[in-house]
Amino acid sequence: MTTMKAVVHTAYKTFPSLKDVPKPTPGPGEVLLKVAGAGACHSDVAIFDEFEEGLNPQMDPEFTLGHETSGWVEELGEGVKGIEHGAAYLIYGPVGCGVCRACTRGQDTYCENAAKMDYAGVGLGLDGGMAEYVVAPARNLVPLGEVDPIDAAPLADAGLTPYHAIKLALPHLNGGGKFALVIGLGGLGLVGVQILKALTGATIIATDMKEDAMAEAEKLGAITVPGGEGQVERILEITGGKGVDAAFDFVGVGATVKTAMDTAARQSRVTIVGIGNLSPYEWAFLGTPYEAELVSTYWGTVEELHEVVDMYAAGQISPQVTRYSLDDALEAYQLLVDGKLSGRAVIVPHGKK
Amino acid sequence: MTTMKAVVHTAYKTFPSLKDVPKPTPGPGEVLLKVAGAGACHSDVAIFDEFEEGLNPQMDPEFTLGHETSGWVEELGEGVKGIEHGAAYLIYGPVGCGVCRACTRGQDTYCENAAKMDYAGVGLGLDGGMAEYVVAPARNLVPLGEVDPIDAAPLADAGLTPYHAIKLALPHLNGGGKFALVIGLGGLGLVGVQILKALTGATIIATDMKEDAMAEAEKLGAITVPGGEGQVERILEITGGKGVDAAFDFVGVGATVKTAMDTAARQSRVTIVGIGNLSPYEWAFLGTPYEAELVSTYWGTVEELHEVVDMYAAGQISPQVTRYSLDDALEAYQLLVDGKLSGRAVIVPHGKK
Amino acid sequence: MTTMKAVVHTAYKTFPSLKDVPKPTPGPGEVLLKVAGAGACHSDVAIFDEFEEGLNPQMDPEFTLGHETSGWVEELGEGVKGIEHGAAYLIYGPVGCGVCRACTRGQDTYCENAAKMDYAGVGLGLDGGMAEYVVAPARNLVPLGEVDPIDAAPLADAGLTPYHAIKLALPHLNGGGKFALVIGLGGLGLVGVQILKALTGATIIATDMKEDAMAEAEKLGAITVPGGEGQVERILEITGGKGVDAAFDFVGVGATVKTAMDTAARQSRVTIVGIGNLSPYEWAFLGTPYEAELVSTYWGTVEELHEVVDMYAAGQISPQVTRYSLDDALEAYQLLVDGKLSGRAVIVPHGKK
Amino acid sequence: MTTMKAVVHTAYKTFPSLKDVPKPTPGPGEVLLKVAGAGACHSDVAIFDEFEEGLNPQMDPEFTLGHETSGWVEELGEGVKGIEHGAAYLIYGPVGCGVCRACTRGQDTYCENAAKMDYAGVGLGLDGGMAEYVVAPARNLVPLGEVDPIDAAPLADAGLTPYHAIKLALPHLNGGGKFALVIGLGGLGLVGVQILKALTGATIIATDMKEDAMAEAEKLGAITVPGGEGQVERILEITGGKGVDAAFDFVGVGATVKTAMDTAARQSRVTIVGIGNLSPYEWAFLGTPYEAELVSTYWGTVEELHEVVDMYAAGQISPQVTRYSLDDALEAYQLLVDGKLSGRAVIVPHGKK
Repeated sequence: MTTMKAVVHTAYKTFPSLKDVPKPTPGPGEVLLKVAGAGACHSDVAIFDEFEEGLNPQMDPEFTLGHETSGWVEELGEGVKGIEHGAAYLIYGPVGCGVCRACTRGQDTYCENAAKMDYAGVGLGLDGGMAEYVVAPARNLVPLGEVDPIDAAPLADAGLTPYHAIKLALPHLNGGGKFALVIGLGGLGLVGVQILKALTGATIIATDMKEDAMAEAEKLGAITVPGGEGQVERILEITGGKGVDAAFDFVGVGATVKTAMDTAARQSRVTIVGIGNLSPYEWAFLGTPYEAELVSTYWGTVEELHEVVDMYAAGQISPQVTRYSLDDALEAYQLLVDGKLSGRAVIVPHGKK
Repeated sequence: MTTMKAVVHTAYKTFPSLKDVPKPTPGPGEVLLKVAGAGACHSDVAIFDEFEEGLNPQMDPEFTLGHETSGWVEELGEGVKGIEHGAAYLIYGPVGCGVCRACTRGQDTYCENAAKMDYAGVGLGLDGGMAEYVVAPARNLVPLGEVDPIDAAPLADAGLTPYHAIKLALPHLNGGGKFALVIGLGGLGLVGVQILKALTGATIIATDMKEDAMAEAEKLGAITVPGGEGQVERILEITGGKGVDAAFDFVGVGATVKTAMDTAARQSRVTIVGIGNLSPYEWAFLGTPYEAELVSTYWGTVEELHEVVDMYAAGQISPQVTRYSLDDALEAYQLLVDGKLSGRAVIVPHGKK
Repeated sequence: MTTMKAVVHTAYKTFPSLKDVPKPTPGPGEVLLKVAGAGACHSDVAIFDEFEEGLNPQMDPEFTLGHETSGWVEELGEGVKGIEHGAAYLIYGPVGCGVCRACTRGQDTYCENAAKMDYAGVGLGLDGGMAEYVVAPARNLVPLGEVDPIDAAPLADAGLTPYHAIKLALPHLNGGGKFALVIGLGGLGLVGVQILKALTGATIIATDMKEDAMAEAEKLGAITVPGGEGQVERILEITGGKGVDAAFDFVGVGATVKTAMDTAARQSRVTIVGIGNLSPYEWAFLGTPYEAELVSTYWGTVEELHEVVDMYAAGQISPQVTRYSLDDALEAYQLLVDGKLSGRAVIVPHGKK
Repeated sequence: MTTMKAVVHTAYKTFPSLKDVPKPTPGPGEVLLKVAGAGACHSDVAIFDEFEEGLNPQMDPEFTLGHETSGWVEELGEGVKGIEHGAAYLIYGPVGCGVCRACTRGQDTYCENAAKMDYAGVGLGLDGGMAEYVVAPARNLVPLGEVDPIDAAPLADAGLTPYHAIKLALPHLNGGGKFALVIGLGGLGLVGVQILKALTGATIIATDMKEDAMAEAEKLGAITVPGGEGQVERILEITGGKGVDAAFDFVGVGATVKTAMDTAARQSRVTIVGIGNLSPYEWAFLGTPYEAELVSTYWGTVEELHEVVDMYAAGQISPQVTRYSLDDALEAYQLLVDGKLSGRAVIVPHGKK
């Protein structure tokens, strides 16, 4: 049996290990990829650091981490069509039952049989991309064409999540004179600013507590408003008093949801992306702008990931990436745990070319 | 000067008076109608009984009540086109500035200059239909054709409000296998059941605390679930566990909003119509169905009122109406204040034919 | 090797044969079903009677006919999840590459790799349901629950095709006072009337040259207008002059497309379902109602077939079916070729219970 | 009586005259504006040069031309609210009955009573802006704020028409990897390119027979493809074979409609803006991309004109304008008749500042 190195979730409340595991082989309908890049995501930290034994059986150890993965096709499983040997692909992470309504429309995130499944996706119960090789269902592969597959890796989550949230809000941003608000300018928020800039003509207002994050958003074309006192008033002022047509909250605590709702226009859409969840937002008819839709969101669909790759190939999205070798993967996770990582860490198992 | 009898809002915190007022004359762009029917609405009670001096200058006395009015055209003001003398019309109540974006699309409810206006509509700052005659802007008139104009009167609010809420939710109800929930089976809620029955193929689940209201909803084709313990579980069970695709809460207190959100499907729409506002609903990412839109709503547009009349003419909506003469109008309001009115009271100034 | 009887497309321009073929076994991701019913469709006739050698390689013989198939699960192939042994399912016919955008959203009809595929679906290049057993991809199975699987069989095409066309047009039919036109009252047209009746509040106008077809449509709730002179004027008159908001042409020759466009309202949608194609329709700016969308349509998606089954289970669709044993299948096809079949012929290989 | 100079449509088949007419006064609900700019439009030429006596009674002489007009408010008619004295406004040209469904939603272009009206709008039966002063309904005024009102004038038609067409097509262009096609790069087509660039992330393909028009489109960010042989193949190639998601044909002859349909993707939208009408396009099911909507369009709504002004104020649209004094207005029309005008001629009655 051939082995390979992999970053493995070995136990709850336990930092992952870099260890030797068997090199996988693709089953029917599956594809083996040589990993190009694998993004390290905050939700990995939630899995190994915060989750309690017995509550999320889909994330039970052991499995290889990495749900933001790109790679080159090494071997096709039985019956696979339409996938090219040697070509680069990005992996759509979620994997559902495959036969329910949600799965048949490519939205495995909302699989109707999720409760009966013992995994949630590649790198989420199934072995993921923090390894030399990875196996994924053929239908989860999105062709990358000629673009750099390594920088593309984080798009699988950090690109798709804001894209899905924004795409559903586009009817509110279609046309002249629209305003969009982005709260929280970490990795997802900054990609959100890029997507809004590329796909709409809206004035983009971005807000955060960190100066450098706001400077970054300004470079991408946003007007920034610092958090804290006067924030709501300043945002309303920029919109001429009417409020924003669509808000995207990448933080998601009660206070940021309130900022979004307090600056929302009538007939707008307020999408909560961040699972901050520290304290609830108190919704009441009076005090809420008429017909402002308050809505959560979660990841995205296979087809949307194709569109994210289109935007990346067109230069409309460029995630900030720092590359690490597989041997340095645990160090990257440690920086992530410590909150010291700037930009997205992408593990590059086969040389950081 | 000719005079006529009218039900007048004379002072805040004061029961209205039936008194003689000058018969109005239509200005340019306006129309004088002989009143066929005028509905007595709960929001009238809010105006004369609950509002505080100085807070709602648009409702400052004195003016004639009645924002649900139908009538026959008696006289056309200067420059009016497209309105037929002698024909019956229903009056769209809201009146905005007429020149902002919202007003030009026929949605005076969201007039951008509302704060500068000293009235909100016919019977809402402007003299309304609780009188022998009423004046309204020509553009606010919806032709009733051959249908009974008296029973039609309440449609101006009690028909238009649920219609608007439901119309915006129809994308969630389009198709086979959908479920709709109606919370609160008073006048608006029962019209809501009729509209859902006529315009969708959804299974309609209706809930209330009153047995007779639920019996009425069942006659209209709804499945009913009583309020109280087990309500959420029973509703979910009817939907096969997935939840409802659209909920309409005609009560709007924290507890009913929570019932709606707890029974909502992923990617559904929860519309709060009732301004219960007693206690807020605590919204948090976890615990909320993914992509379930929580949204308020308010009245509707001129064009939608045309469509409501179409439904009434087609027999798809039939409001429950009790007729009162103008001399008995105060009695009707007293019953309304006392919560003893069943169905909508319509004041018929010119004989209850 | 076990054999079974099957109706086989043996050569172009050749009537099919009833012959012994090997009983299939399910590959990975596939399911073996014992056939409950298999509908005989006009497009089968096109395949064996009209198609020319060399033009449609996807339909090259030999294969078993039958793309409207239901059955009971007999055996699960490797890796299949979420499918219940012994339960009844309806088969979504189209089968694409499985990995392109269209396939990942469950719309194999528009597979981007169709040109490279050597089949188009189950019973369309792949062996279909006109046999004792059939194999289909697990993801193409739609659970039938407790409803009769035999009558359900034609829904796979004769139900899904009008459903898809109508679902895309629902935004034009949402609300009061709408009108829908159905041209051509064969099997699909009559199911179309049922779907429109169940899902909208529109007045349904139906037209055909045959009296009995129109009588059938009237029973289903449509107003009928005979074809021929005065047809356009009569349809416009029913709509009060404005025209219909959505038209569905199940014939699709130049003359019927013209009838649909001549009776269409401004901002309406005219969907051509029938591939009549005898003569083109001459489109020109002047003479066309403003913003009336002229559009073709083709079959539907997996998720939509779930919704069609929901409507069937709710009693909202009931296709007219005549049952034939497998031994009589060729007779049924002959009646279809001769235009003597009324209602849909469903082949029932295991007893017409 | 005060008089003023005006460009008057005096008779069909007759070049307009510059003559003295009475200075107008605003009636109730109307506003008098001092004209800032008035665009000379091709449809004016159609009115005085091509229209036949007796066919278009709404355009019967005499009236002042000019349906693309901006100006400063000089006097408010009775009952006008929300309009500021001295401020600059752009005039929405169409004027319908004011009370039908279309008019109440601000879409006078589709007035249901149009056939009974003896004018179609300001400068279209009613006196227009080719004069020192003009009167318009208050509700047709769109505030220009601080932006240059002279260059803004053509936006009333040459901006609103492509905006309306594009806005309705935005659902087809929302997202990554989309393609838009613009056929015909005259004034409207080039504004169309600007609007698409600002509001979408689509790759814009532009085509024309004139080199300089294409050079202009390239400056605005489009990829250009010359008309003639190989045009369809080249456009398809740019899209990777799939075709464009939305096409806008500003020419509208049979050949250009065919180009649009031959390069359209499945599930796309093909909007014909130009009333070329020389020869019909032959539509047939086979040969047409599945679900490609073929649709005409006409001008736009009041609310959309507000959004066009928002885009102009944001620098997202900048029409090419050549200014003429009122004394030179006939010269400008002569150049227009002769096809020698480049860019839009705007008549500036009060000094070309």
